[in-house]
Amino acid sequence: MPNFKLHPQLAQDCIFLSDLRLCRLLLMNNKDFPWCILVPSINGVREIHELNEADQQTLLKESSELSRVMLGVFSGEKMNIAALGNMVPQLHVHHIVRTQADKAWPNPVWGYGGGTVYSTEEIEELRDKLAAESEANH
Amino acid sequence: MPNFKLHPQLAQDCIFLSDLRLCRLLLMNNKDFPWCILVPSINGVREIHELNEADQQTLLKESSELSRVMLGVFSGEKMNIAALGNMVPQLHVHHIVRTQADKAWPNPVWGYGGGTVYSTEEIEELRDKLAAESEANH
Repeated sequence: MPNFKLHPQLAQDCIFLSDLRLCRLLLMNNKDFPWCILVPSINGVREIHELNEADQQTLLKESSELSRVMLGVFSGEKMNIAALGNMVPQLHVHHIVRTQADKAWPNPVWGYGGGTVYSTEEIEELRDKLAAESEANH
Repeated sequence: MPNFKLHPQLAQDCIFLSDLRLCRLLLMNNKDFPWCILVPSINGVREIHELNEADQQTLLKESSELSRVMLGVFSGEKMNIAALGNMVPQLHVHHIVRTQADKAWPNPVWGYGGGTVYSTEEIEELRDKLAAESEANH
């Protein structure tokens, strides 16, 4: 989507990973939790049910694929998947790998502050691991 | 699913509304938030990506339909949709209508205690409203 405009708050909080068929894949810049976000690259959408049916199905496929990849890379116990958007109206779907050892367990992750940011090296390493796991899945 | 067994915590916290094609539709017994839960009626499933592709698509359809119905009945501003499951491992998907006037806004609803429960009359009224809105959608 050449004219797609990412919400400035997401641009500020996240690191760009890649553009999938429908969604922009972002990494939340917070080392406390393995946390990716899928943003359908269509302007003006706030809710999943506002997407047309084909795009909803693509979102679901990208979400399930991302879940498998994240669990492969981070070996957590549980995915947390959520579309909230009370503060950032642009539709975005959180994907967080949870473990019993993480800072917020068993509560949701929201409200635990910004956390520690990744170094450039850590981002590159994560990017490689996620890409490798994604290829291994195909 | 004749042998489907709802997790006892969900059975305790929620009111049965109906059985859809894939999911059991529950109402969280908490008047603070218009809050429904979809539970795919398949034993042993924890994650959305563990469902087969057809069931994932049915879940999505039932979720989007429920979102439209809930926004029609409760006239809120934003849906919050989430599959967390850190405490109750059985896959269940929260659907909550949020408004700027609600108790938790703009934070997520989890962690705000049990809230006030519905009376029998209120439950019947809600059941009728949701059913009427659902029919109006078809």
